[in-house]
Amino acid sequence: MAAQRLFVWKFGGTSLAGTDRLRAVAERLVAAHRAGHQLVVVLSAMGGSTDELNAMAYSVSGRPQLRELDALLSVGENISCALAAMAVQDAGARAVSLTGPQAGILTDGAHGNARLREVRPERIRQELATGAIVLVTGYQGISPAGDVTTLGRGGSDASAVAIAAGLGLHECEIFTDVPAVFTADPRVVPGARPLAAISRDEMLQLAAAGASVLQPRAVELAAAHDVDVHVRSSFTNEPGTWLQEGAVFESFEITGIAHRDREALYTVTGASPATIMAALAERGAPAGAIVRNGSEIHLTAPGVEEPEVLEAVSATGAQIVLLDELGSVSLVGTGIGRRPDTMARALQALEAEDIEPLLVTSTPSRVTFHVMRRAVDRAVRRLHTTFGLHQAAAVALALDRAARSVS
Amino acid sequence: MAAQRLFVWKFGGTSLAGTDRLRAVAERLVAAHRAGHQLVVVLSAMGGSTDELNAMAYSVSGRPQLRELDALLSVGENISCALAAMAVQDAGARAVSLTGPQAGILTDGAHGNARLREVRPERIRQELATGAIVLVTGYQGISPAGDVTTLGRGGSDASAVAIAAGLGLHECEIFTDVPAVFTADPRVVPGARPLAAISRDEMLQLAAAGASVLQPRAVELAAAHDVDVHVRSSFTNEPGTWLQEGAVFESFEITGIAHRDREALYTVTGASPATIMAALAERGAPAGAIVRNGSEIHLTAPGVEEPEVLEAVSATGAQIVLLDELGSVSLVGTGIGRRPDTMARALQALEAEDIEPLLVTSTPSRVTFHVMRRAVDRAVRRLHTTFGLHQAAAVALALDRAARSVS
Repeated sequence: MAAQRLFVWKFGGTSLAGTDRLRAVAERLVAAHRAGHQLVVVLSAMGGSTDELNAMAYSVSGRPQLRELDALLSVGENISCALAAMAVQDAGARAVSLTGPQAGILTDGAHGNARLREVRPERIRQELATGAIVLVTGYQGISPAGDVTTLGRGGSDASAVAIAAGLGLHECEIFTDVPAVFTADPRVVPGARPLAAISRDEMLQLAAAGASVLQPRAVELAAAHDVDVHVRSSFTNEPGTWLQEGAVFESFEITGIAHRDREALYTVTGASPATIMAALAERGAPAGAIVRNGSEIHLTAPGVEEPEVLEAVSATGAQIVLLDELGSVSLVGTGIGRRPDTMARALQALEAEDIEPLLVTSTPSRVTFHVMRRAVDRAVRRLHTTFGLHQAAAVALALDRAARSVS
Repeated sequence: MAAQRLFVWKFGGTSLAGTDRLRAVAERLVAAHRAGHQLVVVLSAMGGSTDELNAMAYSVSGRPQLRELDALLSVGENISCALAAMAVQDAGARAVSLTGPQAGILTDGAHGNARLREVRPERIRQELATGAIVLVTGYQGISPAGDVTTLGRGGSDASAVAIAAGLGLHECEIFTDVPAVFTADPRVVPGARPLAAISRDEMLQLAAAGASVLQPRAVELAAAHDVDVHVRSSFTNEPGTWLQEGAVFESFEITGIAHRDREALYTVTGASPATIMAALAERGAPAGAIVRNGSEIHLTAPGVEEPEVLEAVSATGAQIVLLDELGSVSLVGTGIGRRPDTMARALQALEAEDIEPLLVTSTPSRVTFHVMRRAVDRAVRRLHTTFGLHQAAAVALALDRAARSVS
């Protein structure tokens, strides 16, 4: 057995949906606690409950104030933490639930999408010292004014990484409803392989391109504080994917393929890229890509609702047109954006499938092709084969790492 | 129009059940705010939600820890306050929701039934100064350890009175689903009359005897801090009943009649009254009456679950037997317990109905008769007639008071 350690674990909403799953999580915690480990466990709201609370808000107000929306939505995590504490106690271990404010998660005052400023884990340490499993509400923090803030959708991943960093740890495990990060979406590519390890940059690129296993913000935090993140299944004891520096496989050109079934492409005239960027940033809606083409600017804003983009850009006085029949396919791998051969092979492969990309954008570690929506799945499968992603890779580093985790 | 004032209002769960009612409350608040008044509004959880949360707790744990139960149950008030703030904002006024901890409601650490220690309303005053309607979660406080506590069922009434006192006010209005305090339950006695005013002691006695319009604790707090409480309908603008000192009608022997359809009577042998009292008090379950009869002790514990009483008393090594076919009828009026004529008239009236009380207990302002359950309603009606409660009373004092409230 491994030495006794302090772990930071995070469980998502689907892992907590319903009494049976909650109990299963509790039993996993108690087993690790019995083995002598200390546990800080970050929980999301139970599956669907945040959506329900959100619907309640919009049933009483057309435009709920963000401060009050935070006060309301944060309640979902309070519920799951208190219930989980009860379930753990029932399973025979000491447990205590802490809200984000109690756990010392300090944020700025940007309600609805607050930035983490600092974690002061005194209360967490205090409770750990009493022998309790400490359950912390994800997604929440406290503003300088003393109000509950939320970190934006999926913010619980960021909470977990921040708490690990605050406790001086260099690891954190995210238990989720998928067993690992795959070379492509297994629903689209039956031969897609789980990746034992992936670099943070690659994970960021996959997430930005539509593979929503882990919130990009959590990955950025992990990079900033040098925290390795283990993404794994909450339903099994199998190791998943380690997100870590050094997990770049030189033998592999492409780490994985991400896609979006629907990705709007906007065409803007009458404003500079800087103006557009500023207008979007003001609403917390970052542009995915901005490409200038003569007097026209092509713009993507993945993850942002279309009306929001249209409104933000129109407000600058610019004209904006939406092309909404597109999806996107992205190749992700460290350095691939700098290799002309990758781009050439990809374009040849797409051509062989009669798929013509309407927009190609590239960053150092990602190349994204906007294609017609009906062609997305075919493009993913073709590129997966072209770049040999079905083949097993050398995963020595990751296996070594995985063996150190509790299972 | 009355001068501009600071009001503390409280709305209960049935007043908040559903979007329409929530909006109606919001409109009432906005109207008073537009008239220039400052409002601190204490809210309960929306109808039924506390029961739902409680059921969730027991679905994951047979014996949930009180600290975690508080963390869970307090969520209901957070939801109603955040939603009400949104509804008020939507209706056109500034509003801010504050939790018990934010509002400065300090309690001891007795989770599940915390005692109020102090109200530090700095944040409330701050928010009032910005022109906002301040919505405060009822039922909640913060323990010295920094954890959310709850004040026990119905604790929102106590929150409202405590906040009024903390703000230096001598009035507080409780909006509820009944229009007033009546001389008897109108469902049992069709001729029952609403009381325009009632003394705090009488209200305490009515509450202790089963008339659950207002939590006894709120009444005690009102007495301790000299706060007059106006109990009124949240569905109309009619004045209800003022709870205040000086509201004792010398012309009236009896103020009202309360009853309980079911009230267990226990017979204990093998322990002293002091031991029994101590055993119950330890579990926060006060005895209603303890009557010694030779070596037997008769005991009532209204409002406490029977298994809890049986367990607490058995634990002392005493024998306890439960007689569970009883209900109770109580006459309430200042000083009636000291008047032999009242007792005599009541017993004659019951005899005329062929009702034989199995236990009679009296305090200075209440006389309680334990009778067979099937006889309770008849006893209430007969006593209501015997003591002339159908007749209109002099209510000048109360009307004067009611006219000062916003309506």
